[in-house]
Amino acid sequence: MCGIIGFTGELAVKNVLLEGLQALEYRGYDSAGIAFFDKDGIKTIKTTGKVMDLKNMVDQASVSEGTCGIGHTRWATHGGVTNTNSHPHTYGKVTLIHNGIIENYHELETELAATGRYPVSQTDTEIVSMLLDSLYQGDAYEAIKKAVVRLEGAYAFCILFADDPDVIYCIRNGSPLVACHSPEGSVIASDMVALIKYSKDYFVLPEEHIAKLTKNGIVVTNFNEEVVTPDMLHVNWDVTAAQKGGYPHFMLKEIHEQPESIRATILPRIRKGVPDFTADNIPGSIFDGVNRIIITACGTAMHAGLVGRIMIEQLLRIPVTVEIASEFRYQNPIMDKNTLVITISQSGETADTLAALRLAKEKHATTLSVVNVKGSSIARESDYVLYTHAGPEIAVASTKAYTAQLACLYMIAFQVALYRGTITVEQGAQYIKELQAVIPAIEETLTYADTMNDICKSLVNTEDLFFIGRGLDYALSCEGSIKLKEISYIHSEAYAAGELKHGTLSLITEGVPVVALVTQENVSAKMISNIREVRARGAMVIMITNGIADADDTIYDYNIKLPKTSDSFAPFTAAIILQMLAYYTSVHRGHNVDQPRNLAKSVTVE
Amino acid sequence: MCGIIGFTGELAVKNVLLEGLQALEYRGYDSAGIAFFDKDGIKTIKTTGKVMDLKNMVDQASVSEGTCGIGHTRWATHGGVTNTNSHPHTYGKVTLIHNGIIENYHELETELAATGRYPVSQTDTEIVSMLLDSLYQGDAYEAIKKAVVRLEGAYAFCILFADDPDVIYCIRNGSPLVACHSPEGSVIASDMVALIKYSKDYFVLPEEHIAKLTKNGIVVTNFNEEVVTPDMLHVNWDVTAAQKGGYPHFMLKEIHEQPESIRATILPRIRKGVPDFTADNIPGSIFDGVNRIIITACGTAMHAGLVGRIMIEQLLRIPVTVEIASEFRYQNPIMDKNTLVITISQSGETADTLAALRLAKEKHATTLSVVNVKGSSIARESDYVLYTHAGPEIAVASTKAYTAQLACLYMIAFQVALYRGTITVEQGAQYIKELQAVIPAIEETLTYADTMNDICKSLVNTEDLFFIGRGLDYALSCEGSIKLKEISYIHSEAYAAGELKHGTLSLITEGVPVVALVTQENVSAKMISNIREVRARGAMVIMITNGIADADDTIYDYNIKLPKTSDSFAPFTAAIILQMLAYYTSVHRGHNVDQPRNLAKSVTVE
Repeated sequence: MCGIIGFTGELAVKNVLLEGLQALEYRGYDSAGIAFFDKDGIKTIKTTGKVMDLKNMVDQASVSEGTCGIGHTRWATHGGVTNTNSHPHTYGKVTLIHNGIIENYHELETELAATGRYPVSQTDTEIVSMLLDSLYQGDAYEAIKKAVVRLEGAYAFCILFADDPDVIYCIRNGSPLVACHSPEGSVIASDMVALIKYSKDYFVLPEEHIAKLTKNGIVVTNFNEEVVTPDMLHVNWDVTAAQKGGYPHFMLKEIHEQPESIRATILPRIRKGVPDFTADNIPGSIFDGVNRIIITACGTAMHAGLVGRIMIEQLLRIPVTVEIASEFRYQNPIMDKNTLVITISQSGETADTLAALRLAKEKHATTLSVVNVKGSSIARESDYVLYTHAGPEIAVASTKAYTAQLACLYMIAFQVALYRGTITVEQGAQYIKELQAVIPAIEETLTYADTMNDICKSLVNTEDLFFIGRGLDYALSCEGSIKLKEISYIHSEAYAAGELKHGTLSLITEGVPVVALVTQENVSAKMISNIREVRARGAMVIMITNGIADADDTIYDYNIKLPKTSDSFAPFTAAIILQMLAYYTSVHRGHNVDQPRNLAKSVTVE
Repeated sequence: MCGIIGFTGELAVKNVLLEGLQALEYRGYDSAGIAFFDKDGIKTIKTTGKVMDLKNMVDQASVSEGTCGIGHTRWATHGGVTNTNSHPHTYGKVTLIHNGIIENYHELETELAATGRYPVSQTDTEIVSMLLDSLYQGDAYEAIKKAVVRLEGAYAFCILFADDPDVIYCIRNGSPLVACHSPEGSVIASDMVALIKYSKDYFVLPEEHIAKLTKNGIVVTNFNEEVVTPDMLHVNWDVTAAQKGGYPHFMLKEIHEQPESIRATILPRIRKGVPDFTADNIPGSIFDGVNRIIITACGTAMHAGLVGRIMIEQLLRIPVTVEIASEFRYQNPIMDKNTLVITISQSGETADTLAALRLAKEKHATTLSVVNVKGSSIARESDYVLYTHAGPEIAVASTKAYTAQLACLYMIAFQVALYRGTITVEQGAQYIKELQAVIPAIEETLTYADTMNDICKSLVNTEDLFFIGRGLDYALSCEGSIKLKEISYIHSEAYAAGELKHGTLSLITEGVPVVALVTQENVSAKMISNIREVRARGAMVIMITNGIADADDTIYDYNIKLPKTSDSFAPFTAAIILQMLAYYTSVHRGHNVDQPRNLAKSVTVE
């Protein structure tokens, strides 16, 4: 995690860095810091807390108007949240910031002790500043190249050398770095969102290349010191799209953007009423030999995969497994050229998912990614990409990216089933119609906001809560639970309803809330039986139904009736309810909805 | 769930029933009741609470020495835990007890209202007594046959008719019933354990057959009223094996029986140092065409499957998926004759697992079951059975059955890999050697009891706890979590360590206990990084390691070092630690270890 930014140019650097860090704060907010060339050398200001705390500290400090510096907002991995552990870190002539994890830092620390260098912090990062200092003899390129061969792990670094003023050196492996040059100067950062004020044209720093930023431009060289010209990319949204637009929180804004984001995701892929991926350059032929599909992802994206699995298996009759990327990559998974591996990631930079993708390519599987951020690592490295067009998602708790991922997975199921002839054109057209009908159904679901707000008041003092469902409802329960957990800090857990009595039922006592999803008619009688079981133990039941009858009103405290969709599409409307459940509960409990404790938006470390 | 018993013969029935219910109490203990032919007709005594409460009530009642009756110990499904909802239920001339769930009881209730019959309880069971009463005109067979065609769901019934004294009629569908006749009389019950005092020879009542018990014998007839002779079965353990043997709880006894139960499970299947399933009648040829393996089970048995999956995939390079049986059965799963379906169940009666097995057979998959109870439904209906020889398991929280299931799955992996040539005979022999070495390693692990007892004192006031691990350690974490949850009522949850930061990390605050399993060297550096992440948030870390170095002592509060096994076999020793963690925590918190609230041993309803 962590957000990093570097700037050198014509502007007062402290303002550029603080603004950039504010935009990057979604990547971590345990501590923040900046370092820049002041009149007497490099000056560092850093503190635990948010960027606003750093800003106050900078405002009170007596500093000159330097124009070159680096800034960091931290999500703690190694070492606690302390001032000393905050970035930037300095050793000798080297000052740097880091996003990633250096796995062999302990071993390096031991070696460096032999040279008389000892760290003051508990971070892996400081060890790298010591390493660079030990290797630096006036040639930054030489020192960096020698240093990186010693590093194991993922990283993005911006480095200042005390005797090389107004220059920033950068290198990355795994962790993201994007850069641009504008009349105001050169900027590099973890994410476009910090660059957009200066330019809509930018490039991704290639791995095993060094970027040298001066106010006149950015020079990228490979390890043979040959200059290379990276491909330029362009974004078409502007900085206001990354603002709250009148909502009290980004999360609520993003919840309400879902009709639009789903429309943007599905409509461009419909031609003559059936799915068509021509514009995405995904030919049907990639599905020809496929006899097994693996969906791999992390967190919310993995939960989207659980829904996708059911849809794909039902329509294609090809076995699908969903794998947690951090597990998958280390389990020597079975794949070959007849395996289709679908990776899903909002940021396209999720470290474990990226590693899973690379493994799949090594094993000659066909790779297709569902990604929100263009030009991200996963998008660039996949054989094929189906972008979710959800726009920037700022709240840590994913909402619109999740439903856009669902939409993509449904489209994949329809498209492949059509291509392979397991459904007819008429069926394909009918499915597309039902998927489009989801959009007004979501709009209607959004009008339940007041009801949800009221219901959530009853969860203000809740410490434990369970979600239960069967089939698609179970897949969705997993997402509902993580959403609530992330921002309300209620210990919630999702259970396949039939599994409850194999252990977890012991936790159901008087008043424990159970959110029961009953949108699938084929298992609704079974669900009602399971609800009676928890009811018999005194559970407070919040039932979410999709026009199912036979639910007598003694078995629930609240019954939320979704706008009618066919059962296969209920995850879209039910997801909105679960998002609102998490959102309003968090608000009523007085938490920071958009920046929950300990979490960051894009997980670029393992 | 629920335990049922019926007796007619020469003995005082109230004693027979109370003793039987005590043996069956592991199946449910929300309420208990008996009904028997007294001098003035049928007399019913029932109460919420345990069998001991019922016994006190019976002792105080003025009853004659009847010799025919039925008894029930309830695990509530429909309707709360009340006296009225307790069994037996009587309507008109009919008195009955029931194990199972009648899904269409609501519809039947409406119909019966038209005949002027209304229930007094909230149970599905009472509706069946009303239905039988409406159909009964002096011929029990006629009434029962007419009634069962109207019933949807699973059931086992023992029925008394007021004008047919000293006779018990029984029928079942899905739920278990076993019976025997001895010089003292005829007995029928949910489980052998209630019969063993009278006979070691018994039979399973076939479905769609009616048993009529009189003191002179048991007559079994099919629906054409033809008498059939069921196959007799024999058990070779006696009633003392089902006692606590000096331990304060069955669970602790069963934890300590694991060296013996694993030995009993693996040794008979080793010949010339390699696995051999000849005596189990499992020919290697059943694995010939297999290109996919599905493991399906519920609860702890499903968690055994998660470990088994990893071992089988690594040795066989055949894709394995693990499916929750209650999900699997309703998802129209993809199977064909080249699919091997492994079902796992201690009791062999788990309703969802049995249904999954039947579905697999329908789809022509090869079925192999890992079951503890001989002659149980799953054992009888599977193509092939590999029995765990764990002996009777009485504590609700499964321990020795789980490790015996692991042993069977490892044996299957070795045997099939050998048969298919993915490992050599030398490798097979080496694996068997390592599996046998697990037995002394478990014996050594059992000596950690005092240490575990001490550590668990620190969990007395814990409300939330997390287990983390990667690979085999994650699979084991799932089991560790459910074990703790079941009996300590701590809300624990297992997480793939790499997934924590995708949401759940928000729940890790100062002092929250995290049990971190670090037994797999290939991911130990990653695990240490994950532990640092939770440590940075103040977690109290209980680390369980398998001789891994590089764990500096700042990252844990407790480090439990397992006796060294090779990494693949660490789940056996680590399982013992997790079982003791659950056990001692429950003891310190003052809970009923063997009979946790809301749970029952054998889940024969959905």
